[in-house]
Amino acid sequence: MNGHSVRFRVRYYETDKMGIIHHKNFVGYFEMGRTELLRSVGYPYAQLEAQGIFFVVTELHVEYKSNARYDEELEVQTRLGWIRHASVRFDYAVRQAAEGRLLATGWTVLACTDGKKVCRLPEPLLRKLESLRE
Amino acid sequence: MNGHSVRFRVRYYETDKMGIIHHKNFVGYFEMGRTELLRSVGYPYAQLEAQGIFFVVTELHVEYKSNARYDEELEVQTRLGWIRHASVRFDYAVRQAAEGRLLATGWTVLACTDGKKVCRLPEPLLRKLESLRE
Amino acid sequence: MNGHSVRFRVRYYETDKMGIIHHKNFVGYFEMGRTELLRSVGYPYAQLEAQGIFFVVTELHVEYKSNARYDEELEVQTRLGWIRHASVRFDYAVRQAAEGRLLATGWTVLACTDGKKVCRLPEPLLRKLESLRE
Amino acid sequence: MNGHSVRFRVRYYETDKMGIIHHKNFVGYFEMGRTELLRSVGYPYAQLEAQGIFFVVTELHVEYKSNARYDEELEVQTRLGWIRHASVRFDYAVRQAAEGRLLATGWTVLACTDGKKVCRLPEPLLRKLESLRE
Repeated sequence: MNGHSVRFRVRYYETDKMGIIHHKNFVGYFEMGRTELLRSVGYPYAQLEAQGIFFVVTELHVEYKSNARYDEELEVQTRLGWIRHASVRFDYAVRQAAEGRLLATGWTVLACTDGKKVCRLPEPLLRKLESLRE
Repeated sequence: MNGHSVRFRVRYYETDKMGIIHHKNFVGYFEMGRTELLRSVGYPYAQLEAQGIFFVVTELHVEYKSNARYDEELEVQTRLGWIRHASVRFDYAVRQAAEGRLLATGWTVLACTDGKKVCRLPEPLLRKLESLRE
Repeated sequence: MNGHSVRFRVRYYETDKMGIIHHKNFVGYFEMGRTELLRSVGYPYAQLEAQGIFFVVTELHVEYKSNARYDEELEVQTRLGWIRHASVRFDYAVRQAAEGRLLATGWTVLACTDGKKVCRLPEPLLRKLESLRE
Repeated sequence: MNGHSVRFRVRYYETDKMGIIHHKNFVGYFEMGRTELLRSVGYPYAQLEAQGIFFVVTELHVEYKSNARYDEELEVQTRLGWIRHASVRFDYAVRQAAEGRLLATGWTVLACTDGKKVCRLPEPLLRKLESLRE
């Protein structure tokens, strides 16, 4: 896979009164997914911010397929959607790890900024992400 | 407006290290928006659940336009997008209340369920929501 | 009362699979309580931070008495516990607003810092908070 | 150690505008700590709830010592504090994993309930937890 996958357990406080994961939490799962993808290509996001590069979410889309419960192990699979000079789209699939059952798919568009205005993605990161498409 | 609007302040824990509202929280703001719209037409969501009717989010979309900071007063405007027998779409706009600056727009699709399977929206609620379109 | 009280509704995502408010959220309710107390004495916390004064929580205590549910209106009552040159304690009571039923009591100690090290509370704020004891 | 330890990374949405972990999140870290301790003695909490046993937090105490940042790896160490027929106290220490720097200590008291009223801890779980003291 030209992407990355990360596993974790559903926390109790992520459930709601329906007994399932509150849909808000998948936004955090996507964030964990792209954090780990960036780490896997050698550009931990914490390091990017330390260099004055900030990724700002400009678009978010989620389609919920089924749900999961407290303490189940989940897996987020993250892939590059597309990449432009100053923005990047990541695509996500969240699955229940044990059976592979699909919980949600979605994507986010992130704009690259210097903390104030939109700027180009650092050249080496751009090349690294482009290589994920091959 | 054939919808509803609700105001509240940004809580400290809703900010992130960029100093702005973390994008995850807009999902909660949308939820507050539809909660208040349902209350305004006489069908508080808590009452629907007490009658065994559950709205499950099946699709979520957000476009982020600008951001806001801790303690700013925000306004969520919620409108009916469309309504079918077993599902409904709500459209949202989140603004900074003081200047009306647009922070985000988006929508959610909710499926009506009896807690297990998809079911028809209660007839009186369906009529009430349809009347919002006129 | 030499303090302040603020009302708000329990949000859906604040509930957990037991059907009640997850205990973590009371920490956020306390924060809202002291935010509103500071505003009521003319020192909005956002303004303090803009002047380079940060309150850092050093101690937190909560006793849970009973619980509340989605959409119930709650009230947080906040009072000054004690005040020293560089720290302050606030005491809280969270009630279900309709019946006054007590949900939780607790307190937090906050250290005053300049963002790096502990510093004295600004003199006018100190005097204002002390006046709450009279 | 007669306890258990679990590691995880600080998520971006757990930070606040001060650039550090918002103090509210340590409540969730404690919860993860006791979840893993219970799993390690063969009584996953999810399984207890499936049998109609619910642990309700009645008291929470946290002392914050220092703070940590986005993406740092943390470790929660959880030990049995004391155990009675119908309640149990867990003690926690949260450290930055890399250097062992102490971030927070604290404890929670949990009452054992059948979902409605306080009840005795299941005998085998009681014995298992007591054995942690030896």
